[in-house]
Amino acid sequence: MTSSFHEMWRDLRPIGRNADSGGYRRYAWTGADADCRAWFRTEAETRGLSYEVDRNGNQWAWLGDPAAGGAVVTGSHLDSVPDGGAFDGPLGVVSSFAALDELRGRGAALAKPLAIVNFGDEEGARFGLACVGSRLAAGQLTPEKAAQLRDADGVSLPQAMERAGYDPAAIGADPERLARIGAFVELHVEQGRALAETPHAVGVASAIWPHGRWRFDFHGEANHAGTTRLEDRRDPMLTYANTVLAARKKARLAGALATFGKVAVEPNGVNAIASLVRGWLDSRAADEATLDEVVAEIERAAVERGARDGVTVRVTRESFTPVVEFAHDLRDEVAKLLGGVPVLPTGAGHDAGILSAAVPTAMLFVRNPTGISHSPAETAAEDDCLAGVTALADVLEGLACR
Amino acid sequence: MTSSFHEMWRDLRPIGRNADSGGYRRYAWTGADADCRAWFRTEAETRGLSYEVDRNGNQWAWLGDPAAGGAVVTGSHLDSVPDGGAFDGPLGVVSSFAALDELRGRGAALAKPLAIVNFGDEEGARFGLACVGSRLAAGQLTPEKAAQLRDADGVSLPQAMERAGYDPAAIGADPERLARIGAFVELHVEQGRALAETPHAVGVASAIWPHGRWRFDFHGEANHAGTTRLEDRRDPMLTYANTVLAARKKARLAGALATFGKVAVEPNGVNAIASLVRGWLDSRAADEATLDEVVAEIERAAVERGARDGVTVRVTRESFTPVVEFAHDLRDEVAKLLGGVPVLPTGAGHDAGILSAAVPTAMLFVRNPTGISHSPAETAAEDDCLAGVTALADVLEGLACR
Repeated sequence: MTSSFHEMWRDLRPIGRNADSGGYRRYAWTGADADCRAWFRTEAETRGLSYEVDRNGNQWAWLGDPAAGGAVVTGSHLDSVPDGGAFDGPLGVVSSFAALDELRGRGAALAKPLAIVNFGDEEGARFGLACVGSRLAAGQLTPEKAAQLRDADGVSLPQAMERAGYDPAAIGADPERLARIGAFVELHVEQGRALAETPHAVGVASAIWPHGRWRFDFHGEANHAGTTRLEDRRDPMLTYANTVLAARKKARLAGALATFGKVAVEPNGVNAIASLVRGWLDSRAADEATLDEVVAEIERAAVERGARDGVTVRVTRESFTPVVEFAHDLRDEVAKLLGGVPVLPTGAGHDAGILSAAVPTAMLFVRNPTGISHSPAETAAEDDCLAGVTALADVLEGLACR
Repeated sequence: MTSSFHEMWRDLRPIGRNADSGGYRRYAWTGADADCRAWFRTEAETRGLSYEVDRNGNQWAWLGDPAAGGAVVTGSHLDSVPDGGAFDGPLGVVSSFAALDELRGRGAALAKPLAIVNFGDEEGARFGLACVGSRLAAGQLTPEKAAQLRDADGVSLPQAMERAGYDPAAIGADPERLARIGAFVELHVEQGRALAETPHAVGVASAIWPHGRWRFDFHGEANHAGTTRLEDRRDPMLTYANTVLAARKKARLAGALATFGKVAVEPNGVNAIASLVRGWLDSRAADEATLDEVVAEIERAAVERGARDGVTVRVTRESFTPVVEFAHDLRDEVAKLLGGVPVLPTGAGHDAGILSAAVPTAMLFVRNPTGISHSPAETAAEDDCLAGVTALADVLEGLACR
């Protein structure tokens, strides 16, 4: 198993890697994405698995008859955020193939069909919406809405799929396919340091925190930076800056997360007081009441400071994902199969979170020593990755042989 | 005179105006710029002035023999910042032609040649450097440095000039031309509210404040906004936000100006903690010691907060213009010709500031009721503009008839 594991990483490593940043740029329906998908197909076919692409472009590799029902499915995604790390996504797919190799090595007698899946466009780096492949399959994104998605160059999602050789007319909900799945297990590198503070290489997810994105528009007045007296200004950059600091404070007091990571300024000139600053707030918390309260407090702070600055504040909720509680029965069974590993929540969305509305779903996390993710510095120790493969094999065997 | 004044504004008003913003986009060597320049040439030729373009693309309209020396020159510029107002620049050029009309109406006997000039690329909106036409003429910008200037599309300044029909091989210092000038007077809309608080429609400039641009690079660590604990973050947006507020406070305490109006963020994703925030500081003060101290204090505040955030701060001075004291003799003569008008400093750079190193130079400001400039909302009352024309005519007559 170990050798195959290393070979899989060796083949994946160069695909879509930017030499300057050292990070990955594997965006949906681009050349790098096509190379990742070709890699998946090769891994499936060299193992004698039955390969197929569903109507939404997700890739499947089957062992056993899909129509038999009750399938145990594992997998993740291969696309990346801009300059993302090597593990977010690919660790789950590589570990799925490696776990299958291990099950075969063990001579495990599977009573149920088993499949490995690569969901398309999980990160949403190109079209701005995450988990497009799983959302379409689960009917949480309609083909009409999907057709409106455009990338930074104005290319629509259907155009991008068509150029990549897929049929965009086919996309849409896929309930028959999901009905064949008895359990879905996604292995993922942890995107935090909870496991790093324990002796455990692997943990099980309890829930995904509710999270959302809010756009804060700060409207002031453009003016000359060299001649306008401070007292005559309506400078939205001041209100934005104060709101960034307020968001951090409110989140800290509530045990939540709040981040301004994206900004757009007009006219964005060195010698011009801004007329408009747009800042996007990403916020998450353990429950929806806390999240609502944190965002309301940040908005209050923004409006209050805006009144002092002569700046108007408008807040638009651009997306919201409710809390995902993973199926308790499956979670408890997985935890039992692994024997007392930590059970932990996460703030990150995943395909597993989308599917959990339709299918019993569980997630395994592999320890991340620095907690860094969505960055070229994202890493995981080889021993921990191998422990993840063994854990995933144990879980698949336990579920498929019962 | 009044009728011609209105006709000039009527002809200029539609050129380069953006219908959505209502602001002007007259960038150097674009179609809108060419239309402005054609307007200038027509105004010169219909008045029987001798029209010429200098080696740097600045336009001149002469009454009398340039070679006679000691010329009295007036003028300004016709280009604009992005979505700029109608008056910044054009008010000076329109008023120059109108003042000449008034002098002719008065039957003034001019003892010296008189010229009207339109300096190219004053705002620097396209190539990022202000006062390119006057800097080249005065030898403050070498042809080699000018050749390195590029616009956002990668077009170099020489390429842009060539495409607009000018010869970029000719650009460079023009000491013979400047030696013909006995005095240069630039009329400009005030970019502040100093005159608005007086009964005076027109004022005289004492000095241009020293000013500079500093780029603050805040380096943190990219990470996942949904999973990274607050205490594990190195978020440069926090340091940037704190620095924006510190800049305002330090400037206020020192009676100076400090503005962050331009920001660039990497990776600038909604769910990504930024790895790098770049903010550009524009700062100005009445004297260089104060300016140095304000910028040093802002940098200290940034570094101090950065240490708390795990963020490194690097500050680069991108440009600096020392204080410009306009020639005292000329300033006093102009003030005397106008009879007790306010004498005031300004924070804005002008072609007059560049020329002042080589030529006795003065500036007139016309009252701006709101103080707003570099914005579509920039305005000036018609009566004040007409008072500006009369004042300019008085000054030109006084200087050219002595």
